[in-house]
Amino acid sequence: MPTVTFLPGFRKAVVPKGSTILDAAQRANLAMNVVCGGQGKCGKCVVYVRQGSVSFDREKFRHFFTDEELAEGACLACQTHVYSDVRVEVPEHTLIQEQKILVETPVLAVPFHPSVRKYFLRLESPTLDDPTPDLNRLLEGVERRGGPAASTIYVPLEVLRDLPQMLRRANWAITGTVALVPGGYRLIRVEEGDSEERLFGAAVDLGTTTIVTYLWSLADGQTVSSASNYNRQIACGEDILSRVNFAKKDRLVRLQQLAVESINDALTAAADAAGVDLEDVVEVVVAGNTVMTHLLLGIDPAYMIAEPYVPAVRRMLSTAAGRIGIATNPNAGVYTFPAVSNFIGGDVIADILASGMAEHDDLSLLIDIGTNFEVVLGSSEWMLSCAGAAGPALEGGEVLFGMRANPGAIERVQVDPDTLAPTYETINGVRPRGICGSGLIDLLAELIRACVIDRTGQIDMAIRHPRIRQGRYFPEFVVAWKEETDIGKDIVITENDIKNLIMSKAAVHGACMTLMNAAGITHHDISAIYFSGAFGNYLSKENAVTIGLIPEVPLERVKNIGNGAITGANIALISRGKRKILDDIAQRITYVELNAEPSFMDQYTSSCFLPHTDLALFPEVQKMLETCRLRREEKWQP
Amino acid sequence: MPTVTFLPGFRKAVVPKGSTILDAAQRANLAMNVVCGGQGKCGKCVVYVRQGSVSFDREKFRHFFTDEELAEGACLACQTHVYSDVRVEVPEHTLIQEQKILVETPVLAVPFHPSVRKYFLRLESPTLDDPTPDLNRLLEGVERRGGPAASTIYVPLEVLRDLPQMLRRANWAITGTVALVPGGYRLIRVEEGDSEERLFGAAVDLGTTTIVTYLWSLADGQTVSSASNYNRQIACGEDILSRVNFAKKDRLVRLQQLAVESINDALTAAADAAGVDLEDVVEVVVAGNTVMTHLLLGIDPAYMIAEPYVPAVRRMLSTAAGRIGIATNPNAGVYTFPAVSNFIGGDVIADILASGMAEHDDLSLLIDIGTNFEVVLGSSEWMLSCAGAAGPALEGGEVLFGMRANPGAIERVQVDPDTLAPTYETINGVRPRGICGSGLIDLLAELIRACVIDRTGQIDMAIRHPRIRQGRYFPEFVVAWKEETDIGKDIVITENDIKNLIMSKAAVHGACMTLMNAAGITHHDISAIYFSGAFGNYLSKENAVTIGLIPEVPLERVKNIGNGAITGANIALISRGKRKILDDIAQRITYVELNAEPSFMDQYTSSCFLPHTDLALFPEVQKMLETCRLRREEKWQP
Repeated sequence: MPTVTFLPGFRKAVVPKGSTILDAAQRANLAMNVVCGGQGKCGKCVVYVRQGSVSFDREKFRHFFTDEELAEGACLACQTHVYSDVRVEVPEHTLIQEQKILVETPVLAVPFHPSVRKYFLRLESPTLDDPTPDLNRLLEGVERRGGPAASTIYVPLEVLRDLPQMLRRANWAITGTVALVPGGYRLIRVEEGDSEERLFGAAVDLGTTTIVTYLWSLADGQTVSSASNYNRQIACGEDILSRVNFAKKDRLVRLQQLAVESINDALTAAADAAGVDLEDVVEVVVAGNTVMTHLLLGIDPAYMIAEPYVPAVRRMLSTAAGRIGIATNPNAGVYTFPAVSNFIGGDVIADILASGMAEHDDLSLLIDIGTNFEVVLGSSEWMLSCAGAAGPALEGGEVLFGMRANPGAIERVQVDPDTLAPTYETINGVRPRGICGSGLIDLLAELIRACVIDRTGQIDMAIRHPRIRQGRYFPEFVVAWKEETDIGKDIVITENDIKNLIMSKAAVHGACMTLMNAAGITHHDISAIYFSGAFGNYLSKENAVTIGLIPEVPLERVKNIGNGAITGANIALISRGKRKILDDIAQRITYVELNAEPSFMDQYTSSCFLPHTDLALFPEVQKMLETCRLRREEKWQP
Repeated sequence: MPTVTFLPGFRKAVVPKGSTILDAAQRANLAMNVVCGGQGKCGKCVVYVRQGSVSFDREKFRHFFTDEELAEGACLACQTHVYSDVRVEVPEHTLIQEQKILVETPVLAVPFHPSVRKYFLRLESPTLDDPTPDLNRLLEGVERRGGPAASTIYVPLEVLRDLPQMLRRANWAITGTVALVPGGYRLIRVEEGDSEERLFGAAVDLGTTTIVTYLWSLADGQTVSSASNYNRQIACGEDILSRVNFAKKDRLVRLQQLAVESINDALTAAADAAGVDLEDVVEVVVAGNTVMTHLLLGIDPAYMIAEPYVPAVRRMLSTAAGRIGIATNPNAGVYTFPAVSNFIGGDVIADILASGMAEHDDLSLLIDIGTNFEVVLGSSEWMLSCAGAAGPALEGGEVLFGMRANPGAIERVQVDPDTLAPTYETINGVRPRGICGSGLIDLLAELIRACVIDRTGQIDMAIRHPRIRQGRYFPEFVVAWKEETDIGKDIVITENDIKNLIMSKAAVHGACMTLMNAAGITHHDISAIYFSGAFGNYLSKENAVTIGLIPEVPLERVKNIGNGAITGANIALISRGKRKILDDIAQRITYVELNAEPSFMDQYTSSCFLPHTDLALFPEVQKMLETCRLRREEKWQP
């Protein structure tokens, strides 16, 4: 079988003849950009073949490469098949870049009451007068120490088989691990001697892009370490749709393995950091969106992406770690968060748990924004939810100099209303390469404050200023001069970029309004707006209100809950009471399908202004805009 | 690796160099007599090496073979190692003979209420307005058909993974199989279309020697077929002790596999006979003694055979068939009967269930006799149990012409009190080769009736009769003359045989008396004596009382329940209510250790008479003996 060697770095993979270079890259654990999931459509997985024989359809590549590039050996990894040993050069931009992953130290306001407990027992050894069977002796010991009744504890065969030798080797001093499971309890493990202190659990945020994990001591309720890494499935497509399409071609098993490997990477890193043996991790709670959860468990998500968009399962599921390949103790219970629908998944339920909104009487709004967004409105009494596509603009896509939150991204901007000179901060403080989501929101708000753009997003070309100019296709505002940047070009924001941003923010705000109208409430009734996710974390609350991304409420009511998925997973790991209510929460949430809701289009259209068509909804922004307008008129009066 | 070819029949096995011929025979599925479990002690696994090179310790074989036999190539399979291709001749007597296995058609007086049910569902296909997830749709359908609440049904990953495709392939007309399991319910299986009628369960009696299985339709409560075969573990030792010793040498896995293969043989035969697909068998209930149950589940029974005799587990266990290799649907639940102690195992609990004694207010006595015996005394209020070694005499061992219940065994005997001429029946009606247990009991009773023996078992040599004579070592009675037999020798019973039989029966009767005394009751209080097992089935009740094997009660109170193990397993298979009380029954039974009970030795000694030292306990037998004595004195008065 041919060997594919990747340069630089000399990673190698041996693959069957006819495999694609992408297959080989995946085998070599090289994470390439494959936005389209390997369909040859996105043109991101560019590589250069340096040695060996490959086969591809030259016509297909015309769209992506010049003749010169083709002559140099350029091809798309996903469309190029290898038939002999091959050397392939991988340009840096083809590989997935390191990104800011949100890992915080959790401070959870929930009582520590885990579902799993260890019991160190010094048992009496059996005698002719007391020949109680080994298992009974053990379980009665657990009961005497305040554990659950023996008859309610299920004992898997694997544990039972080791028991007789174990008890005698340990001279009847052993530690039993008992977990609360659906329908009763389960004896997870029996160890020699006193190991009560070695009891760990893991909370996992299984994101489409990143995995975050926290390792907890379930003996004392302390976090011992955390770790994060990319989801290896990225190599099979960046977005959910691509993953589901990738899975269709009998490659569900591959995606399942990649999800497991990604989690195992994070668990191993966290365990190594804390000096914890993964065998001592006896419970894992995973919060992921509906597709991620399906893929982790090896359930085909195919029917979720076509009408009528039906997931296979919604409830919390549990299985033994060993059965799906999670590298903890094989008997560890793996719990996946329940979902409401395809689009309101376990990650959103985790957000809700993290915010506490399902347990409060006051009304709250929860917003999680990525390429897709989810909105939940409600309280302990009722909850409405919806989801939609925000488009990539808020994440830096569909914007000329937009980029992800990678090093060199402008993440904070202020524009001096007098000089129009921008002040910005970049990630890692390096020279700017582009603008990420939070920077774009700032820019939009600052430009409207400075009256550079009007409420429709149009740039006021009447202002004579070197930073305001006609670009190749659209009017544009220069954020950073070529000389300041790392890319040898002026970094600008165009009127078209601004339109795209407005459409994205209008989708989110329109969704909020649709739910509020359906519930018959206004922004006055909302006691809290929770922002979840990396985006919300780096966002300026004030600017989010200024551009009308979210309803106007007093700013102190806007709260960032950070990575709600991992916080929710942490809570469900350490609190059996909170884990128990998850299915209830999921069942209580009504899902509103925005595409089927005629009022959504009206709300969306009304939201396609800065901040909104109806300024009465944004009284404070209205006042601010008025002030700005007056100052502008003073200063720029022609 | 050397190939061992067995003659006649040319079965072959390839084994590593240095393996024993016994190892090869086991691999070739040739069931040899290995009473000692392969320790070279019993001398039963005789074979003749005809070709090839083997190695053994000639000195060890002197005890079993003459120089002539050794010159012919005789050796013990368990002590002979092969180093090249070998041809081995296996004499007929080395192979396990076909034996009478008890298979009856059960008539069970329990309501049919199985733990597993099928639900044929025509589900609405999902729409945009009703995108209920696949699993919820299915479980809600089950609930609407009167099944358990969705939230109480656990769904294993294997079933969930197939669900989305299955539902659509079936156009939403499917059949779900739901089983009651500890702690709730379990979705065992989902099939296309209406398969409600194809719902089967298996009851298994996992005996040390034989496996019996019944296949039931759990759709309508009818038996569809039955089958039986040898326990393949016999090749690793005939009795329990040998098996446990065999397991010690890292061969627990082998014994586990043999138990599973033996059950699978029986299940396959039964399924084939009924035209049932084993995939449609979704529940298996297994009754076996404590060691057999441990071995089936792969739990080391080592600690059960040495002081203080502790089993690993006593409770009913359940596991999925696929996890231990049972050839039914892999998701089928396999349930093993609970035990009381090492010696009162699941087979005895099954006997108790079959007898109904644990559910009656009246006192009953249950007796199961083999090489070991078990006795249970009690009612719905309390139960005492004990067990002991009856020795092999009642099964034809330790008796000069004793044999198992194989063809040619004398199983019924009458002795004319006037002429002393025996009339006998043999198994299969062929010429006699020996006497089996029921024949020996008859003979003992008839000889005492004919006053050939006295109450101590001594043969009255004063009687001048050609059938009564001095044998080589002991006085003896000729049961069949050489000319009538198949073995070219007179078949006799010696005084020594009779002593051994009396000691065996005394152990059983002494055990009954020990329990009765412990409970403070007499034979008058016993409303029923249940005989379980093959032995009890072929036994003459009257003769059992006459010799004092069991307490004297009116004969109509003595009942054969036949193979109580399989009957109990059948009951627990078809009645969820009865299965539920098994753990309760087992827990309610007090085990009396006879070796620790000083009164047992007294009771045993008092029972070492025919029928007993104290004739007041056997008033009817006493009357009969008096009549016989008078007639004898009339006839044989010297």
